[in-house]
Amino acid sequence: MPDPSPVVAGIDIGGTTIKAGLVTREGAVRDRFTLPTAGFPDPRRLVTTLIEAIRMRLRGHVLVGVGVGAPNGNVYWGTIEQPPNLPWPGVTPLADWLAAEAGVPCVLTNDANAAALGEMLFGDAQGMRHFLLITLGTGVGSGIVVDGKLVAGHRGFAGELGHVIVEPGGRLCGCGRRGCLEPYASANGFERTYQDLTGTAREGEEVMALAADGDALAQETIDRTARVLGRALANSVAYTEPEAIFLFGGLASAGDQLLGPVREQFEAHLFPLYRGHVALRCSGLHAGDAALFGAASLIWTDQP
Amino acid sequence: MPDPSPVVAGIDIGGTTIKAGLVTREGAVRDRFTLPTAGFPDPRRLVTTLIEAIRMRLRGHVLVGVGVGAPNGNVYWGTIEQPPNLPWPGVTPLADWLAAEAGVPCVLTNDANAAALGEMLFGDAQGMRHFLLITLGTGVGSGIVVDGKLVAGHRGFAGELGHVIVEPGGRLCGCGRRGCLEPYASANGFERTYQDLTGTAREGEEVMALAADGDALAQETIDRTARVLGRALANSVAYTEPEAIFLFGGLASAGDQLLGPVREQFEAHLFPLYRGHVALRCSGLHAGDAALFGAASLIWTDQP
Repeated sequence: MPDPSPVVAGIDIGGTTIKAGLVTREGAVRDRFTLPTAGFPDPRRLVTTLIEAIRMRLRGHVLVGVGVGAPNGNVYWGTIEQPPNLPWPGVTPLADWLAAEAGVPCVLTNDANAAALGEMLFGDAQGMRHFLLITLGTGVGSGIVVDGKLVAGHRGFAGELGHVIVEPGGRLCGCGRRGCLEPYASANGFERTYQDLTGTAREGEEVMALAADGDALAQETIDRTARVLGRALANSVAYTEPEAIFLFGGLASAGDQLLGPVREQFEAHLFPLYRGHVALRCSGLHAGDAALFGAASLIWTDQP
Repeated sequence: MPDPSPVVAGIDIGGTTIKAGLVTREGAVRDRFTLPTAGFPDPRRLVTTLIEAIRMRLRGHVLVGVGVGAPNGNVYWGTIEQPPNLPWPGVTPLADWLAAEAGVPCVLTNDANAAALGEMLFGDAQGMRHFLLITLGTGVGSGIVVDGKLVAGHRGFAGELGHVIVEPGGRLCGCGRRGCLEPYASANGFERTYQDLTGTAREGEEVMALAADGDALAQETIDRTARVLGRALANSVAYTEPEAIFLFGGLASAGDQLLGPVREQFEAHLFPLYRGHVALRCSGLHAGDAALFGAASLIWTDQP
């Protein structure tokens, strides 16, 4: 017998893989599927393929909306703009196209903002009014929640914590400036710190394993990363005074091995008024599904 | 004939002087008066004196509320907490006392937040949904407006831009940490930069006058201040993506002499996505009345 309960299609667009699934109001993900990003140089063909694949999986569920998380996504316009790691140059009005094809509302935002909403609706930020979520992946992104609402900013580009200058005159960033947080606290930045210290290139996970075995330079890599990241997070508190900061993805999956030293630096650099009042934690969302939850939350947040 | 139109009492509590006045919905200030802060070691006596002085001046106007801007003011609790420059140690529940004495609602917040509200209601931020106001006085404070609302934060202490660490390991700050923005961009910080460069102590206004006359070290003082402040403001944009940043008080009253170099450094350090999209301006409020406007705005904002 078909189940007429409502579902939202969550879509997580990444540089390599597009993940999608049906997400219920209770936060269960059903009927996951993936598509290879490179297989869709024409985003209009992606739209028809996605909606067809979603329809096939509904089996009586009522589709009430489509939520999309994407790099360089803009929530005001539902567009993806000049994404460096996607095969679609210029501005792609993906939300409009998906809504037209599916016949239901579509909301799109950047991947870090989507993850923050996912944390609020289905993760450990439930009930919190003020928090930050920081993604430590290929890049460093962030979602800022104030008074229970995601901060979008004047033109939809709020929350670019990866591009706060933390080391004036420091490492060259992909954005063309020097000393941003991203080239220090991203997975690539972490690996570069290890290479600078040792002359040897290694994957982040190898460096973590070496440090766990007592390797001094691998540990120094963790400590240097923690110093820059801990200070940057402490500075962030002075803006919106969150009650918690969640670290998400990539480096954050190392858990306490990184979180411990970051927390130490964070507390040491925190303005006295805030000390002991801001929790620093790893995301409560399962990494594999978080982006889907987040994308789906874009719709569920507006549902009664 | 008495005028029955509504007014708000705006009260601006400073370390030396307490300024007050009646503010109309249209932003006119009437019947200003001042009290010496040191004359009121007992804040309860200040409360009765203030309300009596306000009542005397109403002359038929209807008092609809009392708004207070104060250093270390907390908007959630209406308290002044451990203010370093006021004669009231501990926590003073000033808003509750004023409301009880006056029989009308009283809202209290910190002085920079009050100034931001004043800018939104009566100054150049009218109609803006996202902006920052930075006070450059004895200290450096800030008010952050997101979606037309002041960001208060988890415990009422959001917007401490003066205590973002901008020069790791740098100058000792009054908060006990090193390298905060405040010891560089406050009036004292500016004077200290001049003294470090020349060995001579001078007032900020003298330094400005010297620079206008072509003095190289006075100009270098301005340029160094602009470098630190411009970068800090550029970093701030990455959080809430405001459409404008307003500089207010003290150093800001130097106008283009400081604003020009700050703007140059600001644009140079801005993340490319934001460049050309964030205005950097001096406050549109008359400095003498701004804090009163701001304090009164706490009440007027909630009025229909």
